[in-house]
Amino acid sequence: MVNIGIIGLGTVATGVVETLQMNREFIEQKTGRKINIKKVLVKNIDKPRKVDLQGKLTIDPDELLEDESIEIIVELMGGEEPAFTFLKKALNKGKHVVTANKELISIHGRELLELAKANKKQLLFEASVAGGIPIIRPLKQSLASNDIKEIIGIINGTTNYILTEMTEKGANFQEILAEAQEKGYAESDPTADVEGLDAARKLSILSSIAFNSRVTPEEIYTQGITQISRKDIQYARELGHVIKLIAWARKRNGEIECMVSPTLINKKHPLANVNDVYNAVMVKGYPVGDVMFFGKGAGKNPTASAVVADIIDITRNFEGENIMGCSCFMNRKVVPYKKIESQFYIRMSVVDKPGVLAKIAKAFGDNNVSLSSVVQKNTAGDLAELVLITHKTVRENLDAALEEIQALSQTREIAIVLKVEGDE
Amino acid sequence: MVNIGIIGLGTVATGVVETLQMNREFIEQKTGRKINIKKVLVKNIDKPRKVDLQGKLTIDPDELLEDESIEIIVELMGGEEPAFTFLKKALNKGKHVVTANKELISIHGRELLELAKANKKQLLFEASVAGGIPIIRPLKQSLASNDIKEIIGIINGTTNYILTEMTEKGANFQEILAEAQEKGYAESDPTADVEGLDAARKLSILSSIAFNSRVTPEEIYTQGITQISRKDIQYARELGHVIKLIAWARKRNGEIECMVSPTLINKKHPLANVNDVYNAVMVKGYPVGDVMFFGKGAGKNPTASAVVADIIDITRNFEGENIMGCSCFMNRKVVPYKKIESQFYIRMSVVDKPGVLAKIAKAFGDNNVSLSSVVQKNTAGDLAELVLITHKTVRENLDAALEEIQALSQTREIAIVLKVEGDE
Repeated sequence: MVNIGIIGLGTVATGVVETLQMNREFIEQKTGRKINIKKVLVKNIDKPRKVDLQGKLTIDPDELLEDESIEIIVELMGGEEPAFTFLKKALNKGKHVVTANKELISIHGRELLELAKANKKQLLFEASVAGGIPIIRPLKQSLASNDIKEIIGIINGTTNYILTEMTEKGANFQEILAEAQEKGYAESDPTADVEGLDAARKLSILSSIAFNSRVTPEEIYTQGITQISRKDIQYARELGHVIKLIAWARKRNGEIECMVSPTLINKKHPLANVNDVYNAVMVKGYPVGDVMFFGKGAGKNPTASAVVADIIDITRNFEGENIMGCSCFMNRKVVPYKKIESQFYIRMSVVDKPGVLAKIAKAFGDNNVSLSSVVQKNTAGDLAELVLITHKTVRENLDAALEEIQALSQTREIAIVLKVEGDE
Repeated sequence: MVNIGIIGLGTVATGVVETLQMNREFIEQKTGRKINIKKVLVKNIDKPRKVDLQGKLTIDPDELLEDESIEIIVELMGGEEPAFTFLKKALNKGKHVVTANKELISIHGRELLELAKANKKQLLFEASVAGGIPIIRPLKQSLASNDIKEIIGIINGTTNYILTEMTEKGANFQEILAEAQEKGYAESDPTADVEGLDAARKLSILSSIAFNSRVTPEEIYTQGITQISRKDIQYARELGHVIKLIAWARKRNGEIECMVSPTLINKKHPLANVNDVYNAVMVKGYPVGDVMFFGKGAGKNPTASAVVADIIDITRNFEGENIMGCSCFMNRKVVPYKKIESQFYIRMSVVDKPGVLAKIAKAFGDNNVSLSSVVQKNTAGDLAELVLITHKTVRENLDAALEEIQALSQTREIAIVLKVEGDE
């Protein structure tokens, strides 16, 4: 019998308890052990619960952390503190740890992994990225033979749902956000999702593993989806693209380029068909080529799947001395986003007069930005809307061009700049 | 340093050698060990090779199997014998084994896994299914928490390429097969691929792991793609489907239903967009829901990715006492295909006379087969082509109906019966 202690009893933890109950029999057959939930740390013991854990709830963390019979701590409370303090203590007390806490791992992953290794204990966190989709373990094991070149994915279900709905209904961001909140697909404070922070945390974990070098969320240029209008979605469609919140990281000349940003993805790209709350991560490497992992990236059951798989894995390898520890044995530079080369989509409104386009084209040309397509749209009154897609260029060249264009008396607004993927 | 011996030096083995050379540095960093190819068993030492292995080639298997300094045997020769004999000897000699041999694992997997466990050695075979796409390890580990309900996938690249080309060019099987052979996408003897045997071997491995019960290739009803005409592809398209060679297995009432067959997949199903030589495997389980794995399922580099990842995994866990062994701890019955419930597509030609359709409809009705759609096609002379899709029915009811229809004097030919997926 293996005793586990669970920290937190929200949605995911409830799913974990249910999974351990529902699939109890074959989990025992697979592991040769009975997994026993001994204690669950909660804030409020008297709150009604969906699962029967009578006599196991406690508000005292030490009832888990100081209990020597508890061999695995499963942390599902989320947030940086006090989770960090709890898990350090758990590892120092010789307990294995499973966590779904992307915030914690993205900030303190290295320290916790090193502490785990020092204590010869496992720290597993498959559920921290893309819910039930296996991605951490495949990167660490099944693809360990690969020189990973690039990761590109949709790793936030809330924003993918919102963008899918905006695309299908031709609606604006605010309307769909309200709808998503009603349906429970978006939180009442949706900031971490819609501003891209959640995706940046997950990308920091994925790229740290893929490139064997620490990438923190702060190092990732992050743009949310709040500025995306239905106009952009419409124009993108006309140009053969779909707008998705894309998490992207690439190794180039030994350095790491990475970004979370709403991106025009070519309709033929496999990620263009990943809709609603589904997530997908594509990994490009040598020798594997392209592989993609697809599924539901959040929610009670998919996340519980990953958490319980980690518990099973620890249960199977209890005596194993072989702890992988932190795999960030390199120290790669993260390239500032201004230096990253990409194609870009720009929407701007200008006064519709002869010679304006020539001035704009000159500003791009003077800054070494060449244009792939230029479309004039929705002229209203004396204003014309220009939609442009550049060839590949570094962002600082584009910004220099846009600065010159902004200074033109005929320019009313540079409304939005978005990354473009999958064309060149 | 870890010494390995490789059996065979064909395409995949060449990719393995190249990967170990190209990615040598970081593989050493990841594992803390140098992986040294000590000996390679070949049929002909003098044949020119693409990789430099001077002095390491041998035609004597015992130079690998009897060499105590070789700790891992990598079997890439394929086929049942002598691979089986070699690997039994390797395990008995206390060596770990990595193999890409689906034929061998599908037939002797249990025996080899038990032998490995008895010798406390690893037997890994990620490359045996879907090349570089991680699927064996995810099923055994990342999804270990799940009650797997169903597996559905495209796991043969050759047939997927042929069907994709037939679809895109409106061409017939024989034309595209010849083209695929010229391009090296199909072998000169394409039987194992086009008759579905290769897919059945892979499905037997996947379902044995997923359902924890041995499924042999012989137990899997297998239908190849040689009978598919461009007409069927055209009719399927008009009915909102794409024809794919689908490997499918489901757990139902504790028993296993499985089948490899050309199948009309609804265009909205994620597998409908998996084209060319790409493979994809979708796994459905509780609690994870649906997850899909996508990538190139064959070829030198993708397969080498999986083989070398297995080598790395063994290298990392050398001292591990924890060998997973065979996971088939259940003994589930495999349902005869006649008892499997599904939707079906039928194309037949009949004499175009009043009352014929009524007789046909009666035969279906009398056998409890209800029809979802009936389309009359391409009437030529006094013959009409009928294309029907049934609602869900067990195959034996359908066959009884078709026997009655076959016996009608107005029936000229029941040309083909195909499974339909993703509608109901």
